[in-house]
Amino acid sequence: MRITLLIHCPDQSGIISAVTGFIHSKGGNIVYLDQHVDEEAGVFFMRLQSEFDPDTMQFDVLDSEFKQQLAARYKMQYRFYPGEERPRMALFVSKYNHCLYDLLSRYHSGEMSVEIPFILSNHKDLKPIAEQFNIPYYHIPVNKETRQEAEKKQLELLLSARVDFIVLARYMQIVSPMIIDQYPNRIINIHHSFLPAFAGAKPYHAAFKRGVKIIGATSHYVTEELDAGPIIEQDVTAVSHAHSVKDMVAKGRDLEKIVLARAVQLHVDRKTMVYNNKTVIFS
Amino acid sequence: MRITLLIHCPDQSGIISAVTGFIHSKGGNIVYLDQHVDEEAGVFFMRLQSEFDPDTMQFDVLDSEFKQQLAARYKMQYRFYPGEERPRMALFVSKYNHCLYDLLSRYHSGEMSVEIPFILSNHKDLKPIAEQFNIPYYHIPVNKETRQEAEKKQLELLLSARVDFIVLARYMQIVSPMIIDQYPNRIINIHHSFLPAFAGAKPYHAAFKRGVKIIGATSHYVTEELDAGPIIEQDVTAVSHAHSVKDMVAKGRDLEKIVLARAVQLHVDRKTMVYNNKTVIFS
Amino acid sequence: MRITLLIHCPDQSGIISAVTGFIHSKGGNIVYLDQHVDEEAGVFFMRLQSEFDPDTMQFDVLDSEFKQQLAARYKMQYRFYPGEERPRMALFVSKYNHCLYDLLSRYHSGEMSVEIPFILSNHKDLKPIAEQFNIPYYHIPVNKETRQEAEKKQLELLLSARVDFIVLARYMQIVSPMIIDQYPNRIINIHHSFLPAFAGAKPYHAAFKRGVKIIGATSHYVTEELDAGPIIEQDVTAVSHAHSVKDMVAKGRDLEKIVLARAVQLHVDRKTMVYNNKTVIFS
Amino acid sequence: MRITLLIHCPDQSGIISAVTGFIHSKGGNIVYLDQHVDEEAGVFFMRLQSEFDPDTMQFDVLDSEFKQQLAARYKMQYRFYPGEERPRMALFVSKYNHCLYDLLSRYHSGEMSVEIPFILSNHKDLKPIAEQFNIPYYHIPVNKETRQEAEKKQLELLLSARVDFIVLARYMQIVSPMIIDQYPNRIINIHHSFLPAFAGAKPYHAAFKRGVKIIGATSHYVTEELDAGPIIEQDVTAVSHAHSVKDMVAKGRDLEKIVLARAVQLHVDRKTMVYNNKTVIFS
Repeated sequence: MRITLLIHCPDQSGIISAVTGFIHSKGGNIVYLDQHVDEEAGVFFMRLQSEFDPDTMQFDVLDSEFKQQLAARYKMQYRFYPGEERPRMALFVSKYNHCLYDLLSRYHSGEMSVEIPFILSNHKDLKPIAEQFNIPYYHIPVNKETRQEAEKKQLELLLSARVDFIVLARYMQIVSPMIIDQYPNRIINIHHSFLPAFAGAKPYHAAFKRGVKIIGATSHYVTEELDAGPIIEQDVTAVSHAHSVKDMVAKGRDLEKIVLARAVQLHVDRKTMVYNNKTVIFS
Repeated sequence: MRITLLIHCPDQSGIISAVTGFIHSKGGNIVYLDQHVDEEAGVFFMRLQSEFDPDTMQFDVLDSEFKQQLAARYKMQYRFYPGEERPRMALFVSKYNHCLYDLLSRYHSGEMSVEIPFILSNHKDLKPIAEQFNIPYYHIPVNKETRQEAEKKQLELLLSARVDFIVLARYMQIVSPMIIDQYPNRIINIHHSFLPAFAGAKPYHAAFKRGVKIIGATSHYVTEELDAGPIIEQDVTAVSHAHSVKDMVAKGRDLEKIVLARAVQLHVDRKTMVYNNKTVIFS
Repeated sequence: MRITLLIHCPDQSGIISAVTGFIHSKGGNIVYLDQHVDEEAGVFFMRLQSEFDPDTMQFDVLDSEFKQQLAARYKMQYRFYPGEERPRMALFVSKYNHCLYDLLSRYHSGEMSVEIPFILSNHKDLKPIAEQFNIPYYHIPVNKETRQEAEKKQLELLLSARVDFIVLARYMQIVSPMIIDQYPNRIINIHHSFLPAFAGAKPYHAAFKRGVKIIGATSHYVTEELDAGPIIEQDVTAVSHAHSVKDMVAKGRDLEKIVLARAVQLHVDRKTMVYNNKTVIFS
Repeated sequence: MRITLLIHCPDQSGIISAVTGFIHSKGGNIVYLDQHVDEEAGVFFMRLQSEFDPDTMQFDVLDSEFKQQLAARYKMQYRFYPGEERPRMALFVSKYNHCLYDLLSRYHSGEMSVEIPFILSNHKDLKPIAEQFNIPYYHIPVNKETRQEAEKKQLELLLSARVDFIVLARYMQIVSPMIIDQYPNRIINIHHSFLPAFAGAKPYHAAFKRGVKIIGATSHYVTEELDAGPIIEQDVTAVSHAHSVKDMVAKGRDLEKIVLARAVQLHVDRKTMVYNNKTVIFS
């Protein structure tokens, strides 16, 4: 049985030895360990995977003894994740379908190990795709008057479906601070530029106007400040003077879907940790 | 004898036919033609290379007949460049040596077909490298009091050495508007970020702070607005949370020197045209 | 009305002038021209797009006059393509679904301008996906005994559906020479390696064993020699010692689908020409 | 005082705990740990860096106690490297100068922390560059008759200069098995293709002929089988039908020098381990 452990705590001598000693003493065989020290902030991060004998291993005991023996002493924030857990992912979309298709096909083929309790949109356009894949689709229109009501409905849906994290697959709407509070570092957005260049609306138009030779896409956790949350993944592709805005939009679609899928996969694999508005991405 | 022709003019029907017909009628064999229409601005750009018989070809006649028969009619800005011309490139440097070494080694090995009349710096640090390569080195310190005097000296040096274009190989100083006026679209800078992200000073520090997963370098023509001139070439490289600012600086050095060298080579090969603060880069 | 013209012929002086003069004289406004000379083979290639007035333009006349006035004189192979034509693309698949999903979602969203008369497979596995997208699915099992019969059926299907070109979206079977003869340079395959490295079966296993630091995917036209046809598009991604074969397969899926989609798009846009087992890819 | 420890041994439970416990007990503060398990071969690899108090730390005691307490028990191959050591690097060159210039400029600017006791060549061409940088240059011509004699001289030079590792900076000659035996996994070559594609002579010609859309460079440790040793680093760049062999050679130069420099830096930083003709490259 594979257990993944994520830790962060103030940096200090002896942590790795203490943690690996603990795991070893509990019968765990460490199969992966990666760590990082943010020297400016003085913070230690670790991701560790171990194999335990499922017959003798008691998850609760492991957790409570770790808490007593180590977490208290080193002031650790930590969490053990049992390997078989499939997190529950809600998809928020608007009218663009390329990211949605890409995520659903990965889900459907078993490539991405998640549950998708529902797709939510402020438009009806993508409902047929949800039906194609047999996933509930909720249409909650958002406009100035109904915004508050809509956000309340969204949150109810999320909570009642026990959603673990949200993916904004080109959602094109601001997410309510109420929802961000409820899902800190658990809402993943794809922005269609190489952030921090061209934050905000119409980044391909801005890129065209500036005459850049490379365009990009950025997947990040959503925070209250627009397009300013911790970056999970970025990628770029070359463009030239010969590319119109429309050409950039077309090239960008491939970037967006791949970058978003990679970010979601990293999140699902428990390979991301957030600190000081930045991510540690484990290998 | 190879002649390169660069043209831009208002877009209109029949230009390519007229120009290629003219070249053909003068005995030129077209070996390369690339064109671009900026549909927003309504501007036509063309780069054309032809082989002429050096025994019968008269450069001045070609130029004046082109002017009479075509340039006037189509309101063309154009220029013929004879193939054997080696442009004269001045290098401005400060204390970093990686771009300087890279350009000088390309020059020295014959890879880059330019003359280098001199290297100019506000510091003495890189003088030994100039001596290694037998190139005159002028040390012109720049500070608040002496700035105006220094810029006058720089311009005198440039003019008396008949410099065609200037390369700022990590020069770290603002270039005088007086010099920019004299060398429009003929001063090439390397900025150590993926512009427009992180313009200005200390881009690697800013990239580190923002937690980007990719860093870049941008070579552009210098205009009066800092780091905002027409982009010639950009490239990027992946970084992670594990890279300190110092690591990014080190990775960035390789990007900077390669991106700058590519931009200089494009300029030397007459493959760049500038319009509306953007470049057309011919293949 | 936009017309695309593809030409190749023995290289000689005056071709561009003659062709552009012809188009101009017929009232066409050239909006794009790219050309290439293979100097070793002495062959000239050109792609030219022009806008014609749909009210006065006569496609047949244009074609027959071009034939008389130019094609004969310059020994040209050429073809005019009217812009609105949507080529008919057959998809051959086996058990992997990522390329199929990707192409179908591009088709379904209107991103890829083709007709898909059918999907054909030697297995039943992907039939539900065809049904999701409402496309006929033919299951033609192939084994030693039935191979000849199967290939005959395939060809009948292709001809009766007036298929223009075939895409092997991870088909995993050798295509019959009979079909290759019928569709020269019109069958597009995706090979899951950076050809010519790791041709043949199990390229990710071979890449893992060799310890490469980069893996790739290659899309090419199918010829009788396995994995040796003209390359249309390639791309790569970094891997490390930490990637197992299974990890490479997963990373490779994203490469494969993007590289195949780009190659298909180039083909659909009439941007590919083949000569001497190599492609000219126009911009 | 920073100490780097490299270990490989048969994989077994408890190694990380044992090693980190040992370092901790000796007063070391672990600042970096990365590990890898080759599951096929059942081999465990680790790189660990610790800070020790230079006043109390005894390198020999550390080493001998590690040997007794851990190495024997876990059947470890291991080595401690004190941080300040600058390895001694010999450069073998032929007539191409771009890799030589690049390495020397990194050395000269302090970017690359090595000693360069000498440059050795079968030609005189690059002697002036050695003189530019004040490094001894040995000209040892190699031909069929003199090969054995030449190789003996080479080995004498290497041994008498206490060379730690050799870099073939486009050396273009087979290295003697005698020297390979003496420097196992300590001779770094740069091959001008994306291996295993186009091993052997004239890879750019082969790439041109095959019509690939991407060319590469590969740095690897030299083994007796030509171009088949463990790969350290690879990179690629896009090419098109428009690139002649000469263009590819020019584009390739930039790849070659950067890829070779990265590989040398990884070796100097003790980030490479070799097993089963593959490398583990630590981050």
